[in-house]
Amino acid sequence: MFTGLSAFPLSPLGRDGIDESAFIRLIKRLVSAEVDSICALGSTGNYAYLQADQRARITRLAVEHAVNTPVVIGVGALTTDEVLAYAEDAQEAGADGLLLPPMSYQPLRDDEVLTLYETVARSVDVPICVYDNPTTTRFTFSDTLHADIAQLPHIGSIKIPGVPDDPAEAAARVERLKAGIPKHVTVGVSGDAFAARGLNAGCDAWYSVIGGLFPEPALAITRAAQAGDGDKTAQLCDALAPFWMLYKQHGGSLRVIATAAEQLGLVGPDCLPRPLQTLDDAGRRSLDDVLNALNLE
Amino acid sequence: MFTGLSAFPLSPLGRDGIDESAFIRLIKRLVSAEVDSICALGSTGNYAYLQADQRARITRLAVEHAVNTPVVIGVGALTTDEVLAYAEDAQEAGADGLLLPPMSYQPLRDDEVLTLYETVARSVDVPICVYDNPTTTRFTFSDTLHADIAQLPHIGSIKIPGVPDDPAEAAARVERLKAGIPKHVTVGVSGDAFAARGLNAGCDAWYSVIGGLFPEPALAITRAAQAGDGDKTAQLCDALAPFWMLYKQHGGSLRVIATAAEQLGLVGPDCLPRPLQTLDDAGRRSLDDVLNALNLE
Repeated sequence: MFTGLSAFPLSPLGRDGIDESAFIRLIKRLVSAEVDSICALGSTGNYAYLQADQRARITRLAVEHAVNTPVVIGVGALTTDEVLAYAEDAQEAGADGLLLPPMSYQPLRDDEVLTLYETVARSVDVPICVYDNPTTTRFTFSDTLHADIAQLPHIGSIKIPGVPDDPAEAAARVERLKAGIPKHVTVGVSGDAFAARGLNAGCDAWYSVIGGLFPEPALAITRAAQAGDGDKTAQLCDALAPFWMLYKQHGGSLRVIATAAEQLGLVGPDCLPRPLQTLDDAGRRSLDDVLNALNLE
Repeated sequence: MFTGLSAFPLSPLGRDGIDESAFIRLIKRLVSAEVDSICALGSTGNYAYLQADQRARITRLAVEHAVNTPVVIGVGALTTDEVLAYAEDAQEAGADGLLLPPMSYQPLRDDEVLTLYETVARSVDVPICVYDNPTTTRFTFSDTLHADIAQLPHIGSIKIPGVPDDPAEAAARVERLKAGIPKHVTVGVSGDAFAARGLNAGCDAWYSVIGGLFPEPALAITRAAQAGDGDKTAQLCDALAPFWMLYKQHGGSLRVIATAAEQLGLVGPDCLPRPLQTLDDAGRRSLDDVLNALNLE
């Protein structure tokens, strides 16, 4: 489950909370495209902004409509008690795996994060993907901490935030991380712009934002990497560079992907939770140009 | 209300949620000491970690037991809708003011933060203190943004995270901020170690963590500053340097203050929400030494 393309769909909001039909539409796109797994309630799925009942609903819709595609559910929260409740609920709903970010408000210490993962690992029956993304969780993992966590039961994968630009350095970085963790624990790259570099450096999975909306181009990159064609992988990823540029201009991928989903008519307006906003008119024009130029639909 | 010493009490947890009698004890200490205001549900009050019903309860207990001491209630949340609901609830409960942090998960843009403050300012009747603390909210205000927000109705104060070490630079920093905001908007310093420097630099208030547990020494510093005795202000604050050192060693003030409250028998063990932990045995020994040496009780 923690290999290949893991697609992260939005959790679009409508007038009265979750826009369920829009969410189902997004899930169905991923199933038709045959992504390797679907991760609902990741950062792109706005886990941090949703209420418990909304998270429960997204979880059930994802499991129901993913049919045979493995479903991973994000269970991050600021308190361990909430994480445990979300993990229990996700398992009850039939999730195949859990994504666990060390979400923080007060900066966390390493021992607090280790205890969090220990506590959750002891209480679950499905594999956990460790979510390492300092931009949103504001916690930076050391490789030592990754190694300590990876020894715990039920740890299945580590989602890393990116790799160095230089291919040799990237390969060395993935090798160093893998040297400290058990063989059954996979390493997946995130940060869409890093996809080819990460996959070519030996990552087993791509935890993908763009793959949550446009699974085909993300699958093409992933399959090229799995076939060992590093040049093609890089080429296909570089072709999407205008999209990565938009991420940079708009403070990350979320606002861009949400606006793209809206432009395509897949979600309604204002699908992000306030204070987060989708792109303004100028941003939308640039995005339209990029979507057209790249034939993304 | 937004001048002098604003004391930030803990929201201690017990076995079944909020330890109400411990919280009332903390509020009564502050009332007896005659602090200028009490700010419940600040970062020290763990607003980010509490459920809506817990926040409502803390709000009511603070208002009830503060009697005539003005009460400010922290209303921060990741979504604007929750902030609005908390603000309404705090006003209904009788809060005299609101503390509004731009709490973030996805890094926020300036226009999103301005819209948040506009939306809340339009909907409330009591003054708002703008909470600027990048360590916890992960949002950094520019002075331009501060100026834009300070023009809004109902903005009463800005809580800044600290000032430069050098007295002249500190004074220049406060002057620069004040130059851009209306005269009725006060500026308060936070980060306990910065108290004397901030007050001597012209800050009107000290938003104080230590003042939430040990109001007397915090009041002595504040009153010296208000009397214009800069040397005495600095001296009294410097005397507490061993306490500020503990903050540094333990990743901020919260774990130290929570453990100190426990050592004094004011709160029970494990009063912080997991994964946050109080100090370990070695930390507790150093803290005991400091509490004894400084006669803090």
